[in-house]
Amino acid sequence: MSKKLPVAVLGATGRMGSEAVKAVEAAPDLELVAALGRTGSLQTLVSAGAQYVVDLTVPDSTEANVRFAVEHGMHAVVGTTGWDAGRLQRLEELLAEHPETGVLIAPNFALGSVLASAFAAKAAPYFESVEIVELHHPDKVDAPSGTAARTAELIAAARSDAGTGPSPDATTTELPGARGADVSGVRVHSVRLRGLVAHQEVLLGGPGEQLTIRHDSYDRASFMPGVLLGLREVAAHPGLTVGLDGYLNLNA
Amino acid sequence: MSKKLPVAVLGATGRMGSEAVKAVEAAPDLELVAALGRTGSLQTLVSAGAQYVVDLTVPDSTEANVRFAVEHGMHAVVGTTGWDAGRLQRLEELLAEHPETGVLIAPNFALGSVLASAFAAKAAPYFESVEIVELHHPDKVDAPSGTAARTAELIAAARSDAGTGPSPDATTTELPGARGADVSGVRVHSVRLRGLVAHQEVLLGGPGEQLTIRHDSYDRASFMPGVLLGLREVAAHPGLTVGLDGYLNLNA
Amino acid sequence: MSKKLPVAVLGATGRMGSEAVKAVEAAPDLELVAALGRTGSLQTLVSAGAQYVVDLTVPDSTEANVRFAVEHGMHAVVGTTGWDAGRLQRLEELLAEHPETGVLIAPNFALGSVLASAFAAKAAPYFESVEIVELHHPDKVDAPSGTAARTAELIAAARSDAGTGPSPDATTTELPGARGADVSGVRVHSVRLRGLVAHQEVLLGGPGEQLTIRHDSYDRASFMPGVLLGLREVAAHPGLTVGLDGYLNLNA
Amino acid sequence: MSKKLPVAVLGATGRMGSEAVKAVEAAPDLELVAALGRTGSLQTLVSAGAQYVVDLTVPDSTEANVRFAVEHGMHAVVGTTGWDAGRLQRLEELLAEHPETGVLIAPNFALGSVLASAFAAKAAPYFESVEIVELHHPDKVDAPSGTAARTAELIAAARSDAGTGPSPDATTTELPGARGADVSGVRVHSVRLRGLVAHQEVLLGGPGEQLTIRHDSYDRASFMPGVLLGLREVAAHPGLTVGLDGYLNLNA
Repeated sequence: MSKKLPVAVLGATGRMGSEAVKAVEAAPDLELVAALGRTGSLQTLVSAGAQYVVDLTVPDSTEANVRFAVEHGMHAVVGTTGWDAGRLQRLEELLAEHPETGVLIAPNFALGSVLASAFAAKAAPYFESVEIVELHHPDKVDAPSGTAARTAELIAAARSDAGTGPSPDATTTELPGARGADVSGVRVHSVRLRGLVAHQEVLLGGPGEQLTIRHDSYDRASFMPGVLLGLREVAAHPGLTVGLDGYLNLNA
Repeated sequence: MSKKLPVAVLGATGRMGSEAVKAVEAAPDLELVAALGRTGSLQTLVSAGAQYVVDLTVPDSTEANVRFAVEHGMHAVVGTTGWDAGRLQRLEELLAEHPETGVLIAPNFALGSVLASAFAAKAAPYFESVEIVELHHPDKVDAPSGTAARTAELIAAARSDAGTGPSPDATTTELPGARGADVSGVRVHSVRLRGLVAHQEVLLGGPGEQLTIRHDSYDRASFMPGVLLGLREVAAHPGLTVGLDGYLNLNA
Repeated sequence: MSKKLPVAVLGATGRMGSEAVKAVEAAPDLELVAALGRTGSLQTLVSAGAQYVVDLTVPDSTEANVRFAVEHGMHAVVGTTGWDAGRLQRLEELLAEHPETGVLIAPNFALGSVLASAFAAKAAPYFESVEIVELHHPDKVDAPSGTAARTAELIAAARSDAGTGPSPDATTTELPGARGADVSGVRVHSVRLRGLVAHQEVLLGGPGEQLTIRHDSYDRASFMPGVLLGLREVAAHPGLTVGLDGYLNLNA
Repeated sequence: MSKKLPVAVLGATGRMGSEAVKAVEAAPDLELVAALGRTGSLQTLVSAGAQYVVDLTVPDSTEANVRFAVEHGMHAVVGTTGWDAGRLQRLEELLAEHPETGVLIAPNFALGSVLASAFAAKAAPYFESVEIVELHHPDKVDAPSGTAARTAELIAAARSDAGTGPSPDATTTELPGARGADVSGVRVHSVRLRGLVAHQEVLLGGPGEQLTIRHDSYDRASFMPGVLLGLREVAAHPGLTVGLDGYLNLNA
């Protein structure tokens, strides 16, 4: 009898899903029992004996996939976007009927990125100044990046909670755009450069010192340690968890 | 009647002490009621009405200073080194007799440095690889720096607790010293460069991603926000606290 | 008989001037023969036997100072601003009458900064993408910094000369300011952070690689090696030289 | 009649060679007329009308390949290693008989890396201190990297030529290895970290300032712009050129 966790991957033919298939196969404590592309039937999960489901599909199908998993007592680790407030509430109601089942929905599985955002928010109240520089390849269509905007929101909330004032800024003469975008009072600068992938620096400054928290993402492979960590921890976290930071031991 | 906290600075004519005098005078919620150099009498603290004492003296006098403060019901914030296990134990015994009095002994008051070390230790178990690069002015006589050695120890302990293996390293041909010093299994590299002050980078790497936590200290002024934070928080932390991180809200 | 170069400092009581006085005094091959504040008479230069003059005064007096020096056969190293086209032309006419006398007018004496700008311009034609991030203390009133704007102009000119196209940028959705200011087609981002002094990064990117040229200025002392280099080289460069890079051995 | 340059790639099935095939095919001004793997006959170059040859084979065959090209009036761009002094001298003798043919032998085709080394050497005489930090993936077997060692040699030679003294270092207490390896008097530190590819920082420091020249190589694709530049320039540089910097406009 195998003690490996039996895992199914949904969206197995996509870019993220195919990485997940490889990562589960390579993990000594996990067993890949099913890998479904777009056309596979969810009943396969049951016949294959899956107890853990990784959903890396598309916004249109993720809700049905996750509800099927929960209804069959399978834990789910979800990287698909599209989970609005209505979907989340309906999922929580379903999970209330299955109190031993866990679901993790994470917009970002890169451990370094999740840690960087959490650290930035913790540090933000202790410094006079904070700004963000994010750097990406030049084919990206939005500026700033979604991750940078979320980090800025987290920082702004932490400073507001602590009663920290705005970052000082004596600028009176500015060429338009020089001081970056204003996201909830935090300045965010977006660099676009051929050769780069996805990078972010949070710069915090006080009298005579600076703290810099930088994350570099070079490759989609960076998401896989977070997916595996999710699979290993999800059964120990029944109910709904949003954000991988809920599984990280940040408060010890 | 003033609501400002009445503060005395011991070692007020030293380099750190004179900065502390300026910082206390500039703080709107603190009042400098005494500033003693080498020759002042501790009785001045009583007559001046000090309720908070900052000790930035020398190892030979710090124990007597702090014990005097505690015996007179004054809270103490201590940056002086020389507190070995015996001194700490005697102080804890004294504090047990004064249960409402708080003492903070901190080897490092730079908030950014304390946060950087704490974050590095929290992140260390989640990455395959971790190394430290510290950079200082070329007049420094020891390598690696004490801060880097302590950070390495914290990282090593965190990885050991979590069961993380050693950082991978395939090096078979090495020019002596290229791979740095080994501090509890963590490689530490010491750069010495004219123009620098005190800087430290912790580099953490996993598949396809890197997390970098860097602290730059440009000026002794960087210690003062930590000293002020200590003064504002010490009364709320009766007993002995070692390390400024004990006052930082890192676990929320 | 001394073989040291006899140097006079004008503006000796100003911030830069007082640093220059110290630097000249400390240099083994230079001798400080005069140090004039605001009220000293230029005749002192003659009586003191100065053959080299450092002008660190104010825009109103620099032209008269330098002309006096040239008319008396003294070489001049000038850090004062305010040299517009008219002044420069008149000075060149005067120097034509004194063909053995040299004048260096430099807007920036920080060797690292001058080298960084020169390298950035040389490298710019070889990369698809180039952007600038400059970082300063938050009391600075203008954004971007003058140095960053000049560097961007140098980069733009070098790319134009080489026929390099614009940096690629697919941004279609932008929060205002996220992509920085546009200086002659080069994006410039201005970070303002307590604790910083003056810092600049030029980021160059091509397929699969990045080149970063960063300069950190921590202290006014950083200008002095450039001033001393100017004094030692000015006699070997008769006529007018604008910019310290004219004295650096960049083209060997 | 095509005006595109007719190019043959030797070693077309290797990792570098297959990248070169793609790069030549994608370049609007080049035409791939032949692509030989291990077993192809060099006569194919003649029949295909190649006038330019890229050699990305192995040390055992590169000399014969390049001599064949030169004897047939074809220019050659060579990335293969193994060119010792004897081979180079024999090649120069052959090129003397073919005065219009050019050969470029380059140990490194990454433009950013070549520029970074050249800039570091030019800047090195102007700073008191210089050190190198190179960072690679942890599967690398040698430390320091060959590129870092070469950069250190270039820096040491430039400082020696200029009469610059050794970098200051007051270290008296050192944990073995902390201060890195000594390469011709330049300290080199080798970081090994999962997730990294190939990165190098040259740190130069003087009073109050620092200049940092960093190169990041993320992908083998970074070599292709240098290969294409070599192909476009080789006909204009008859005879033998060793090092891509010979083709870069560094001295304008």
